Amino acid sequence: MSLIVKKFGGSSVADNDKLRNVAKIITKSHTEGHQVVVIVSAQGDTTDDLLEKAADLNSGASRRELDMLQACGEQMSAALLAIAIEKMGFPVISLTGWQAGMQTDSNHSVARIKKIDPERVRMELDKNSIVVIAGFQGINKFGDVTTIGRGGSDTTAVAFAAALKADLCQIYTDVDGVFTVDPRLVSGAHKLDEISFDEMLELASLGAQVLASRSVEMAKRFRVKLEVLSSFRDCPGTIVKEVVKMEKTQVSGVARDNNVARIALIGLADAPGVAAKIFSLLAQHKLNVDIILQSIGRHDTKDISFTIAKNGLAEARAVLEAHRESLGYDRLEVSDSISKVSIVGAGMINNPGVAARMFESLAAAGVNIQMISTSEIKVSVLIDLADSDRAVQAIHQEFFGL
Amino acid sequence: MSLIVKKFGGSSVADNDKLRNVAKIITKSHTEGHQVVVIVSAQGDTTDDLLEKAADLNSGASRRELDMLQACGEQMSAALLAIAIEKMGFPVISLTGWQAGMQTDSNHSVARIKKIDPERVRMELDKNSIVVIAGFQGINKFGDVTTIGRGGSDTTAVAFAAALKADLCQIYTDVDGVFTVDPRLVSGAHKLDEISFDEMLELASLGAQVLASRSVEMAKRFRVKLEVLSSFRDCPGTIVKEVVKMEKTQVSGVARDNNVARIALIGLADAPGVAAKIFSLLAQHKLNVDIILQSIGRHDTKDISFTIAKNGLAEARAVLEAHRESLGYDRLEVSDSISKVSIVGAGMINNPGVAARMFESLAAAGVNIQMISTSEIKVSVLIDLADSDRAVQAIHQEFFGL
Repeated sequence: MSLIVKKFGGSSVADNDKLRNVAKIITKSHTEGHQVVVIVSAQGDTTDDLLEKAADLNSGASRRELDMLQACGEQMSAALLAIAIEKMGFPVISLTGWQAGMQTDSNHSVARIKKIDPERVRMELDKNSIVVIAGFQGINKFGDVTTIGRGGSDTTAVAFAAALKADLCQIYTDVDGVFTVDPRLVSGAHKLDEISFDEMLELASLGAQVLASRSVEMAKRFRVKLEVLSSFRDCPGTIVKEVVKMEKTQVSGVARDNNVARIALIGLADAPGVAAKIFSLLAQHKLNVDIILQSIGRHDTKDISFTIAKNGLAEARAVLEAHRESLGYDRLEVSDSISKVSIVGAGMINNPGVAARMFESLAAAGVNIQMISTSEIKVSVLIDLADSDRAVQAIHQEFFGL
Repeated sequence: MSLIVKKFGGSSVADNDKLRNVAKIITKSHTEGHQVVVIVSAQGDTTDDLLEKAADLNSGASRRELDMLQACGEQMSAALLAIAIEKMGFPVISLTGWQAGMQTDSNHSVARIKKIDPERVRMELDKNSIVVIAGFQGINKFGDVTTIGRGGSDTTAVAFAAALKADLCQIYTDVDGVFTVDPRLVSGAHKLDEISFDEMLELASLGAQVLASRSVEMAKRFRVKLEVLSSFRDCPGTIVKEVVKMEKTQVSGVARDNNVARIALIGLADAPGVAAKIFSLLAQHKLNVDIILQSIGRHDTKDISFTIAKNGLAEARAVLEAHRESLGYDRLEVSDSISKVSIVGAGMINNPGVAARMFESLAAAGVNIQMISTSEIKVSVLIDLADSDRAVQAIHQEFFGL
C-alpha cells in the first residue's frame, strides 16, 4: 500500500463531467489499495471571476479580503469533488487548507508555507477515507485565511506529499507529461519518461508551464517523487526525480517565454558599484530581473541590459527614471516585443557543442540573437518576438528531429 | 455610542450595485459613531446554484459536504462587502462563522448554535473596525464547517446581538417593515411601527416571511431589540420588542401560508392512544404537524385531520400507509390545494368578537372554512387555495379598511 498525493488543476475539475472523470481516477487508485490525498484548484474561471467582481468594487482591495474571497474557489471544488466521490460509494472527506493543517506566514496572496500539521489528514486516512484538500490556501497565526500565490496548488500538493512522506505526488494536467517542447508549438514534440529536478526547474522557470517552479524546488528539497500526467488519458506521465538515467540525450527540452521585456541603460559611468545600485533598487521594488548583459559603451561608459517579466516593465521603467540622477545614465531603452527561447539538459555542461548547434540552427533559420545567457543546464537566447515560433521549431528539429 | 448588529439578506447583496448600497448604509452608521457588526447571507441565487450543481453530481450528497460547499456563499459575500466598504475608506474586516466564534452542534445543514465566543469580534470592534460576518454557518467540535438551516442569517444576527449585548439588531429586507398583510397581496397594507415578539412569532410561523421564527424566539429569550427595515429606502422600520404600547388595535396583521397540505385519516378506532400513535410516528420522521382537528366519525369511529408543510406530504403519506395496520384507519385522504389564512394580535384573547368578525368577513366573501385553529394571539382558518387571495383581502378590509 502506498500513500499517493494527486493534484488536479482548474481545467481538470472545470465542470461536473470533469469532476466525475477525476473522481474515477481517484477511486481507481483507492480500489488498488492506495491511500489517496487529493489537492484541487478552483474550477475553471472561478478565481478570475471572483477577482473581477472584487476589482469592479474596489481596484485597491486589501489582499487579506481578496484571500478570504479567493479561497472559496478551492473550497467549493473540494466539496464538489468529495460529493462526486461519495456518489461512487467511497469514503471521502473534503478539508479546507486550515482544516488540513496548512500554516503560512501573513503575506496575504503570496504567503509562504510555514508548517503543515497533518494530524487531521492522517486521522482521516486511518479511517480509510479519501482526503480532498482545497489547494492554494492556508491560515496564518491570527486565524486569517491566506493564499499562497502562483502555482499554489502544485506547491500545496508537494508540501502535503512531503509532510505525509507520500510515496508519489502526481500532478494531473491537460497534457500527457513533460515534452521536449510545447506540443502546441511543434508537431514533433516527444514526451519525456523522466527528467531531473534541475532540468524541470529550468523548464518551469522558462515558461514551460507544466509545473510551478516553486513546487519543483520544494520537491527537490524534500525528495518528493513527482509525476506529471494527463487527467484525460490513462497513460504514464513524466517522472521528475533527483537522478535520471545516464544515457539520456543531452538536451531534454526546448522552452520559450514570451512574457519578457528588455530594458537597456545606455551610457552608465564605467565605475564600480553601478550595477549593484541598479539591481538593488529593482529588488527593493520586488522586480525580478532575469538575464543581465553588460557591455562596454563609447567614451569610457558602459551599457547594461536586462530582462524582466512584461507586467513589471512599467514599474521598472518608472523606478529607473525616477533615479536617473543617482544612477547616472544617458538613455533608457525599452523593448517588449521579444521572446526568450531556451534549451535545457543535464548533459549540456559536458558538451560545449550543444550551444553552438543551437546558435547554428537559429542562424540557418535567419533568426538574429539579441542576448545570450547560459547556466550549467541551459542556454537561453533573447530574440525578436516575431521570430519566436520559427526559432523554437528550428531548435527542436536540430535536437529531436521532426 | 451604540453597538448595532445589521443583517442583510441575499437579495440586498445580490450584485455589486447592491453591495455598494449596503456599504453606504453600514458606513453611515459607523460615521454616526456606532460600532457596527454586519451579518450577510449569500448573494442572490448563489446557494441554490451550488446546491443544484451538487444535486446533479449526487442527489444523496452528505450534509457535511453540502455544508462545506454552501458556506462559501456567505464567505464570498462577506469578503465582497468588506471590499466595497474598504473602497469607501472605512476600517473593516470580514470573518467566517468559525473565525467569528460561532460554535454549533454537529447536525449538519440544521445545526443548532451552542455558543458564541465573540473574542475576535470584540477585538476587531476595539480597533474601530466594521466587522462583516458570514451568516448561516459555524463550526462543530471536530473543526468541521456547519450550516444552521432555514433563517440561518437572521438567527446568526440575533445570536451575535445577544452575545455582544448589542443595543439593536437590524434586519434589512426588501420591504419597509412588518405590515398588517403582505403588501403584494393587498394594496391597503399598513406598516406597523412596533409589534411584540409573540405576535411576530405567530406572523413568522404563519408564513409572513419577514423574519425567521427561530430568530424571533431567540430575540425574545435574550431580550434583543429587533428592527425590521428596508435596505433600499432610508426610513424607520418596525420595532419588535417585548412589550408594545397599550392602546394598540386588537389585530396586528393578516398572514397566509400556501405551503400547507392536509391529511385526513378516516375511520380510526374511537379508543385512547390513537392520536398519540399517529403523531409520535410522524415526529419520529421529523414531520412537523401544524393544525390538528379530531371529529366523531360514523359507527363508533373517529376521524383525525391535520396539516403539514407541502414538502413533507409525500413522506407523511408513505409513513402513514406503511403503518395502516397498526394505526387501524379505513381511508387516508390528502389535499394539497389549500391555504392557511390567519389573523394575529395580542389584544385578541380579550375580545372574542374578533374571531367572529373574521369568519363573517369570509362568509360575506363566499369563502368556505375547512378547519379552524386558535391560540391566545391568533386565529387560523384552512380554506381552498383558490379562495386564498380573496380571503386575505376580505379579512384585511374588515380589520384595517382599504
